[in-house]
Amino acid sequence: MQAYTARAHTNIALLKYWGKANQTEIIPTTTSISLTLDEFYTDTTVQFDETLTEDQVSLNGQALTGNSGEKITRFLDDVRSMANISAKASVKSTNHVPTAAGLASSASAFAALAGAASSAAGLELSKTELSRLARRGSGSASRSIYGGFVEWMRGVDDQTSFAIPLTEQVDWDIQLLTVVINDQPKKIDSRGGMQHTMATSPFYQEWVDNTNALTVPMENAIAAHDFTTLGQMAEANALQMHATNTTACPPFNYLTDASWDVIQLAAQLRQTGIEVYATMDAGPNVKLISKSTDTDQIQAQLQQLMPNITTVVATPGPGLKIVKGDSI
Amino acid sequence: MQAYTARAHTNIALLKYWGKANQTEIIPTTTSISLTLDEFYTDTTVQFDETLTEDQVSLNGQALTGNSGEKITRFLDDVRSMANISAKASVKSTNHVPTAAGLASSASAFAALAGAASSAAGLELSKTELSRLARRGSGSASRSIYGGFVEWMRGVDDQTSFAIPLTEQVDWDIQLLTVVINDQPKKIDSRGGMQHTMATSPFYQEWVDNTNALTVPMENAIAAHDFTTLGQMAEANALQMHATNTTACPPFNYLTDASWDVIQLAAQLRQTGIEVYATMDAGPNVKLISKSTDTDQIQAQLQQLMPNITTVVATPGPGLKIVKGDSI
Repeated sequence: MQAYTARAHTNIALLKYWGKANQTEIIPTTTSISLTLDEFYTDTTVQFDETLTEDQVSLNGQALTGNSGEKITRFLDDVRSMANISAKASVKSTNHVPTAAGLASSASAFAALAGAASSAAGLELSKTELSRLARRGSGSASRSIYGGFVEWMRGVDDQTSFAIPLTEQVDWDIQLLTVVINDQPKKIDSRGGMQHTMATSPFYQEWVDNTNALTVPMENAIAAHDFTTLGQMAEANALQMHATNTTACPPFNYLTDASWDVIQLAAQLRQTGIEVYATMDAGPNVKLISKSTDTDQIQAQLQQLMPNITTVVATPGPGLKIVKGDSI
Repeated sequence: MQAYTARAHTNIALLKYWGKANQTEIIPTTTSISLTLDEFYTDTTVQFDETLTEDQVSLNGQALTGNSGEKITRFLDDVRSMANISAKASVKSTNHVPTAAGLASSASAFAALAGAASSAAGLELSKTELSRLARRGSGSASRSIYGGFVEWMRGVDDQTSFAIPLTEQVDWDIQLLTVVINDQPKKIDSRGGMQHTMATSPFYQEWVDNTNALTVPMENAIAAHDFTTLGQMAEANALQMHATNTTACPPFNYLTDASWDVIQLAAQLRQTGIEVYATMDAGPNVKLISKSTDTDQIQAQLQQLMPNITTVVATPGPGLKIVKGDSI
């Protein structure tokens, strides 16, 4: 059978996904909205081969085994079932998401795998179908099917929970400046963290309600290129998400003193007229939603606060690309 | 006129006061419950003197001027108005609340001042009247009129907002082990912090509702000497209070990495059967609600985690004491 290769970019959530209404199908409690990022992506080649006795999966040239390998095999089983084939697959994946950037690679990884595996299996899936398939691998991957601003409609079941594009081409100035904070490794993975919080934080339902109430205002801010409203909503949504963790029982916390230094710097910069807003995921890194015209000033202020801090800039990126063959 | 001296002890809130329904009268949004502490207190001597042309206030031998001095004068005006006198006063106050303990001294300070000033003015106030008067100086001072476990009923106005004793004599094992975290000074005072949070955090009302719903369960836990339930409720209430700050707009945060290390240690110790719960106020110090029989083990674990950390142990203390004369 023919090999196919897909490239998918990672994304940053402006309204977050944090908790599943249905664990098995990965149906989220919130509708999330994200921006796909150009600089960070995963390339994945898949070929089904009747002569293989088991799936062979490599990531960055290393064989993937254990839980991660099993997760890929379960995903491929899903594709085989859809295509009604039984052949095992060779999967070669290369991540262009620097670990230092602190951006989750599972979104680009499962979006690329959905594209390459479904095409290699002979399926011709619509983007909606690809988004559903990617979602079942990793929730945020559902959004990486599209470029630019994307909305993952939470839905109520497998059929109704998928992403739609809001604005694939982003022709206005918005970027993501990630501040890499190394002083504390991620201690609780997002999957375990979100479930613990959902089960024990008294603020969890309030966060869900607040997030879902922001869907339309965030769509409107994106349509209007309203950077200020977008940034304010994104920062508030992220802080509230983290507050569900610090009020879980027992509590946990992804943010460190350095994270807070950056969050406070963003607030100070706004007072001087530089528009910059913070968002944080399941780790200490702070991602600053900013304008390219302000990058130099923000970098200078950051370096003053935290000498030799590493930053990574990312700009809006494209959606999933699938090509025949073993390279893209 | 005769000099009077009063001694009042500080207290730790198990259910917190964080926000005023009425700014002027200091009517809180929540009913709070506290434990008065033996080791930390303020001694204050007041004498009204017709020959003085202005109030003379000293704290620990130093003249108190500026905002702090004006606040004392306004408090004395309140007392003069109640007693229908006009004489200025000499106020000599000594704080036995080590700054290092990170426990607020305003509670003991205004409770002692209420006792000494009202007596020196010739008033014979009931404890309820003393609690109201102390409240108008500093909210948490309303609770320091009593010893042991105390409840400040929020009420709706000056007449109905005062503290009542729950159990003045505490004859079971409960203490407070304060872990002194020096790595970050208090940047936002509690008065400003609580108002900003009340005005801007989407979780604030939820916190208020949750706190008020815990009044009766906390009363019951205290009556039953139920250390576990008391500790669980106190820790959850404190964490939720701090989460209202981290979700204010802009956000702020009293807790540091070191605070979180101690909070996490408490959770780990509980898993090994040592009952210890964390509570935190408007600063980074973590106060561990614990039993004296566990002190050595907790201290040992703390020293392992944070070598040379300073800790301060406090036990349940008595209520306000007032004596005639200039010493106690």
